[in-house]
Amino acid sequence: MTDFPPLREELRGLAPYGAPQLDLPVQLNVNENPYGPSPACVADIATAVAEAAGSLNRYPDREFTELRTALAGYLSRDTPHGIAPEQVWAANGSNEVMLQLLQAFGGPGRTALSFAPTYSMYPEYARDTMTEWVTGHRESDFSLDLDKAHALVEEVRPSVVLLPSPNNPTGTALPPEAVAGLCEAVGDGGVLVVDEAYGEFRRSGTPSALELLPDHRNLVVSRTMSKAFALAGARLGYLAAAPEICDAIRVVRLPYHLSAVTQAVALAALRHAPELLGRVDDLRTERDATVAWLREQGHTVADSDANFALFGTFADRHAVWKGLVDRGVLIREVGPDGWLRVSIGTPAEMTAFKQALTAVTEEGLT
Amino acid sequence: MTDFPPLREELRGLAPYGAPQLDLPVQLNVNENPYGPSPACVADIATAVAEAAGSLNRYPDREFTELRTALAGYLSRDTPHGIAPEQVWAANGSNEVMLQLLQAFGGPGRTALSFAPTYSMYPEYARDTMTEWVTGHRESDFSLDLDKAHALVEEVRPSVVLLPSPNNPTGTALPPEAVAGLCEAVGDGGVLVVDEAYGEFRRSGTPSALELLPDHRNLVVSRTMSKAFALAGARLGYLAAAPEICDAIRVVRLPYHLSAVTQAVALAALRHAPELLGRVDDLRTERDATVAWLREQGHTVADSDANFALFGTFADRHAVWKGLVDRGVLIREVGPDGWLRVSIGTPAEMTAFKQALTAVTEEGLT
Repeated sequence: MTDFPPLREELRGLAPYGAPQLDLPVQLNVNENPYGPSPACVADIATAVAEAAGSLNRYPDREFTELRTALAGYLSRDTPHGIAPEQVWAANGSNEVMLQLLQAFGGPGRTALSFAPTYSMYPEYARDTMTEWVTGHRESDFSLDLDKAHALVEEVRPSVVLLPSPNNPTGTALPPEAVAGLCEAVGDGGVLVVDEAYGEFRRSGTPSALELLPDHRNLVVSRTMSKAFALAGARLGYLAAAPEICDAIRVVRLPYHLSAVTQAVALAALRHAPELLGRVDDLRTERDATVAWLREQGHTVADSDANFALFGTFADRHAVWKGLVDRGVLIREVGPDGWLRVSIGTPAEMTAFKQALTAVTEEGLT
Repeated sequence: MTDFPPLREELRGLAPYGAPQLDLPVQLNVNENPYGPSPACVADIATAVAEAAGSLNRYPDREFTELRTALAGYLSRDTPHGIAPEQVWAANGSNEVMLQLLQAFGGPGRTALSFAPTYSMYPEYARDTMTEWVTGHRESDFSLDLDKAHALVEEVRPSVVLLPSPNNPTGTALPPEAVAGLCEAVGDGGVLVVDEAYGEFRRSGTPSALELLPDHRNLVVSRTMSKAFALAGARLGYLAAAPEICDAIRVVRLPYHLSAVTQAVALAALRHAPELLGRVDDLRTERDATVAWLREQGHTVADSDANFALFGTFADRHAVWKGLVDRGVLIREVGPDGWLRVSIGTPAEMTAFKQALTAVTEEGLT
């Protein structure tokens, strides 16, 4: 008897990816930015969409030229070398950017490599493109041992290396010399993707991998408007790389993948960059204070360059997570066993989190 | 020496998919609806986006429950059996819907089948998912010979059959008994996708394949808001199928693939369905008049249930296409050799097309 529906064998019984969602007062589970756009930004987005809406009967600009130019201008702030529009690519969230990278450069007979613990969607991109998935391991402080990493690259000869910096869920940033060295090790047979989804939250003195682009044509630096730009709902991920990498992605992208509305919203938000990014400094301060507070309470906390903190370790992390849920605070049970991840919210939300964690700790659940 | 970038071998040298775009006064090349949304609809879209924009810092509803419900309500007009929300799936354009179907039900070791001439993106979905691609052939009037089709299904045992109705670029609709018979032939080992992208333009008396859903659990009927709904720029494709097929697609969809803005725009447009669809009757009338006029001029024209007409045949169709371009009219050089496809525009646009074609014909280029 045939099973119905005829889903591919390797997909059967799998649950769709997604953080468990509970409707609680304090949502600190998916690293969202707690600050929504201002009324002025909302009004500008609405105006931009109204302008686009009049011609929605027409297909959008397949090459999203104006948006690529605006994104290039924005990224140019983070590198003295500047970024040109033809170095920029964008899609519906970093998810789609990563899928397109794996479609172009991964696939059957090829291997993608990352270092655990890391972002739990990466193996799904590999699975969806039939790319073999190999993971190395990070050290106990979640840093990379470069000798081990180089040895693994030599052994595996990956077509795609996925390296988030800061890493999710640990918050760990990669030093630029590590990125440069791994680009050399990967060589022309692969691309090295530095996923800077949380790049804008990095601490002072941590440079962006964008600075390395002129010297490494196999380097891809991905970003998103979901986090620092507070635009998770608009789904706009993008990358900077050599123009020939962007051209290669164009072969596998679905035509008209970015709607005229998405392009208009992203352009309007980019015009409000100073306002939207103004909150990033507040969140970095709150992040540092949260890390300090957690350490004062006796918890171990990974150094974080992101808008979240990974802390632990708990003999029964699920009990701690559940204790917080019972107090109206949703965080994420993710990362190595015993650890929990809290997103950085508003000061009021972090106070609620601290009070709840203190109460849970006093109950002796930890 | 390694080629750089390390694009997959089978993708090298390929051009990205997309109709050639020229900035001409009369655009009749990509089957767009010539009528944009009304000022009232534009205002409603802007209001809906402004409401969504206030919380764009949050991820969108991953399950787009409100949109699925609205789409189910809309589709229920076309079948006496009704369509439930859990029978509906949506993505960024039919492109992404089809890719997801191939990701779930196609892939290495499996085969997708269609019948040429047909939509030229289909083989790209198969290529992008490593699905083997087989094409049967339509008869000289672009209809399907059911005996041959059944024999090919028996031989190939496809996991996915892609059958547009009306077919693009020929405009040919499939009779329901053909769909039902092929669903039986495909059986539980595959899904049969009736692509009704142009379904709303079908002539009176041509039923939608939606009516067949209760009797065929392997039937998928896909639609788009790009054509009849005049929303090509908003990128919203969707399908109706058995709930277990929708659940299977959820395993391969990228999380949060539909932005909060896309959901808001689609919902607003669905509230304006009577207005947006009001133009469909005008376009059907114009289509029938265009087909009749072309036949009066001595051209062969395929019967069309869509918002375009395939006509010919020309010894040098490129010369005819170019002659029209020189007169400011852009149509599409697509379909079997010798044929050209013209989208149905406004009466003024069709007059311009007719005048240009007459002039080209009088030059003796045909």
